[in-house]
Order: sequence, then structure tokens, then C-alpha cells
Amino acid sequence: MASFGKQVIIADESISKLYAEPLASFAQCPLLTIPSGELSKTQERATELIHALLQLKVDRETTLVAVGGGMITDLVGFVASVYMRGIPLVLIPTTLLCMVDAAIGGKTAIDTPFGKNLIGTTYHPKAIVIDLDILKTLPETQWSHGLAEIWKLGLVYNPSLLSCDRLSLITPAIETKLQICAKDPMDQGIRRILNFGHTIAHALEACSNYEISHGEAVLVGCLVESHLSMSLGYLSQSEFTTIETLYRTLPFKLPKSYQRARLLEAMTHDKKSALGKSRFVLIDAIGHALPFDGHYCQEIASEKLTASLQWMEATCMS
Amino acid sequence: MASFGKQVIIADESISKLYAEPLASFAQCPLLTIPSGELSKTQERATELIHALLQLKVDRETTLVAVGGGMITDLVGFVASVYMRGIPLVLIPTTLLCMVDAAIGGKTAIDTPFGKNLIGTTYHPKAIVIDLDILKTLPETQWSHGLAEIWKLGLVYNPSLLSCDRLSLITPAIETKLQICAKDPMDQGIRRILNFGHTIAHALEACSNYEISHGEAVLVGCLVESHLSMSLGYLSQSEFTTIETLYRTLPFKLPKSYQRARLLEAMTHDKKSALGKSRFVLIDAIGHALPFDGHYCQEIASEKLTASLQWMEATCMS
Repeated sequence: MASFGKQVIIADESISKLYAEPLASFAQCPLLTIPSGELSKTQERATELIHALLQLKVDRETTLVAVGGGMITDLVGFVASVYMRGIPLVLIPTTLLCMVDAAIGGKTAIDTPFGKNLIGTTYHPKAIVIDLDILKTLPETQWSHGLAEIWKLGLVYNPSLLSCDRLSLITPAIETKLQICAKDPMDQGIRRILNFGHTIAHALEACSNYEISHGEAVLVGCLVESHLSMSLGYLSQSEFTTIETLYRTLPFKLPKSYQRARLLEAMTHDKKSALGKSRFVLIDAIGHALPFDGHYCQEIASEKLTASLQWMEATCMS
Repeated sequence: MASFGKQVIIADESISKLYAEPLASFAQCPLLTIPSGELSKTQERATELIHALLQLKVDRETTLVAVGGGMITDLVGFVASVYMRGIPLVLIPTTLLCMVDAAIGGKTAIDTPFGKNLIGTTYHPKAIVIDLDILKTLPETQWSHGLAEIWKLGLVYNPSLLSCDRLSLITPAIETKLQICAKDPMDQGIRRILNFGHTIAHALEACSNYEISHGEAVLVGCLVESHLSMSLGYLSQSEFTTIETLYRTLPFKLPKSYQRARLLEAMTHDKKSALGKSRFVLIDAIGHALPFDGHYCQEIASEKLTASLQWMEATCMS
């Protein structure tokens, strides 16, 4: 890490002993830890972190090194982007989901009581360090959560990613995400296809107060938004069946606290919403999202949405 | 305002009736007001504002219109830059200082308990609307505060701005600031000369809990940092006398709660600080700041700083 000058490491508490403490001891730099879980990705936590850095007299030449999953890279990325108008950032993702998705593309985010990721910046790290050896200690559920984002890339853009050969998917998944981001860095058009499954996923997470993980919510969201794509006549029945068969090989279910009315309300706070109405990315084939005149998302009739949610309730209940 | 689509106006309470209410009524859009004064430029206020916008279901196509002085354009600019990762922003400055300085150059800022402007982003508005008629209602003290930033531009870059012919200085002052910003948009080098007088000014404001305004603090800061430039042997005695004579035509004084130890501590939290030491922009002639190998700021010996602060205490006490 010496080439990045002075550093402060900020790590998820759960992997601190295994990865962050040895790193901080090697780099002889301060280590701050954050309690695990999406409930730490708040404005209050961001403020606490900023005050801790000010207390340490961290200056504009100090690099923040984020070690953890998507919660950590989103939160620390946000803090780095607003601390003294931006200081250098390095990301060391420790989950598959973060390696292939959260750490890639320069998005930072903080949750609000109104919904997930509603505060944030676009801010690129100086480096993203991906060490595949870290995955050797990854629990099985975390592999499923990572596949959720890899398969999503498969559904909207690159069908060759719809496989179960997990390790071999990592590099092509990162390349696919980078390709899409490069076409639309500021999220005004085609980059929105990365939000397939996420109108439902973010709302499921927020309305259950993050009872289920982002990966699990994305598995549900992609399956249900595929169902919606079929129900609206864009996606063929047979392609939908192919998708459903693949997805049912992984474990996922709705949060125990699920209520349809709360999900619908939470969906109106999605970042793709316009005039208070939620919008959806939709696919017309495996590997292709609909452009909708360059918006890459569309408002849909409420009875179609209700029908797909009823299907979800019937087939994904815990 | 119709060309900017949907809007929400956010205005300083003190000028809301005069300017913001008629504008909101014309544009038929919501109006939010913020209590006047630097003490409103906090993280808590930014969070409240973001929640109010979420409550209004403001989407990514809505423009925030900031109406007020530097506190408002800094605060609303910050909120616009982080709300859903950035929404369109229009600035309507209502003070001279804001027209020539705060609104120009894309800096946004929030204060912290550790110091002024320590949180922020670089985020450019879609438009800055400057209506000179607004200045007809400006109190006399506000003219002095505006001159503080105009004269600062004169001291570091464009000596023709060191005049008392206030109205005629506005356009050249804006052009001067834009020229400097264009050379270094991300504040890595020459743009730092805009911070002349500000190591002392920001610390004076923060350590007195914003008892004096930014403009008044900048008048004191520029005069004292000119004294420092002379005391260090960079600026001639005669040029310093020219500067002092001009500055003494305006009213300014130290905060009543001034204590040198608190000022020195507050200065270490300056954004130009490195390794916990404060740094200063210095001039070697009227209209020219020293480059210091491209850093445009320099750490200085503490006895020289103490001597200039003693001079300040002797000549600027209330």
C-alpha cells in the first residue's frame, strides 16, 4: 500500500480480524471498523465516520482504504467523495457480489428512511484490489448473492454469464459491467439496465428494514421482473421458463415481514421514478433489455404489476 | 424558469418574501425556506432538506433552485449533488459576495463541528442567474463583505479589482474567478490562490461559532495574511501599506469571543493542511501569489504567525 501514501483503513467488523488488522499492521496506519449489515449504511454512520477522520486530522492527501462488502464500499466511497470535497479511495472487496458489482463503476451510496441508496455520488477509486483467495473463506449463501448480480448482467446484456461455473464468471462479469458503465458513466441511459430486478429488490430490502440481503433481493427481483417482462408480452414464455429453472437452483425467499402495500409504497421512492411513479427495466430476450427511447425503463400498468407480485407471493414465500 | 422543467425553490428565510415567494408563485412550484446565517449550513440541515425532498417525491429530473447568499448556494448545491447521486441545480445569488464568489466555480460545502466547509463536493449548476437589481436592496455591510472577495482576487491575481467602484467590479471579478477555476477545476494547484486570507478567515468564523460573517472574516484574513507575506520577506513594506490603507476604508473587527489559542487550533482543520500543520497562500506583490512548486501554499514558522496575529490583535480588536 506504500504507493498510496498515508492511509486510513475502514473495514467491516466481521472480516476485520482476518483481513483488515493484518493490513493495518503492515501499513502501520489507523483502522476504523463498522458493524456488519446494511443497517450501518446510514447518514448518521457517514457523519460519525467523517468526524472520526477529522479527529485523526486526515488531510486531502490521505487515502481511505475500504475493506469489506458492498455496504462498506458504498459507505466509505461516499465518505471519501465528500470529505474535504474528495480524497483518494482504494477498494478491497471481500465478497463476490462486491467484486463483480458494488465496487465496479464508481457509484457510492447511503440509505435513508425513505429508501435504499437515495443519497450518493459518482466517485471513482484510485484502485480496486481483487484477491480471489479471499473467496476461499466465503460462506455458500454469499456465492448465491454474488451470482444474483452476475446473472442479472446475463439477463440484460451478456447471456454467456448465465452459468453456474462461479469462479470462471468473475472476470467476464466485471468486464461486462465496465463495458456498460463506459457507455453511460452518469447513468442517464443504457447504464440503467444494470438496475434490472432492482426496482423490486431495493423496495423489498427497504420495506423489510433490510431483513434480507441485497443479493437475495436481487434474485427475487430479477425473477419477478422477468415474469413482468413476459406478462407484458416482451419476453417469450419459453425464455422465461429457462430463466425460472436456472433461478430455482438457488435458495431465496421473500422477507418474513413482506406486505404488498408496503412494497408498492417503497417502490415509488426508486431513483428511476418519475412524477412519483415507479419505472422498470424490462427484457425482451435473455441478454437484451428494452431501450424505450433511450430511457431504458418504463412505467407499467398497475394490474400487470399486481399480477406479477401475486405470482411472486405464490412462488417465493418463505 | 419553465425551461428547467419541474423545480423546487429553496431560499433563505430573510429574502423569501421579497424574491422567492413571487418566483415560486410564478413557477407554481414548492418553496422550502432555511433560517438565515452560517449556523444553518450543517449536516443536520442537509439531511432535513434531503428528507423534505424525498417526502415531496422529488425525482432526478427535478431542478433545485437556490435563492440566497453563500450559505444557501453552498448548502443547496451540496444537497443537489448527493440527492439520488445528483439532480439539476440553478443558483440565484442575492448577495454581492455570492454573485462574485460563492456561486461561481462549482464548490459546494457543509460545515462541521471541527471547522468550516470540511464536507462538500465539486458540482456545477446548470445556470447561475445574476440580477443586479437585487443589489438595490442590499444593506451597506453586505457591500463590504462582497468587496472582501473581490479585493482578494485583486491581491492574488488581478490588481485592477482593488478599487472602490463597486458595481463596475462585478463582471470583471466573476471573469477573474472563472479564469482561475478553469486553470485548475479540481483545486489541486493554482486554484488554491482563491484561498488567500482564508486560512485565518475560516478559522476565525469557526472558533467564534460564526459570530462574524464570512465577508468580514475575509477582510481580516486578507489583511493579516498580507502582513504575514510582508513579515516573511515576500511582500514589500510599501505594497503592504497600500493594501492596509485600502482595507482600513472598510469596517471590520475581530469576533468578541476571539482567543488566539482557539484560532490556532481551528486553523489546523483547514483543507490546505498537511500532516496536521496549517498552510497559507502568500503574495509577493499586489496581484501575484507565490507558486511554491505548484502547491500555491506553504507551512510557515510559528513565531512569524504569532507576530502577525499579535499585530492583528493590536489593530483589529473590537
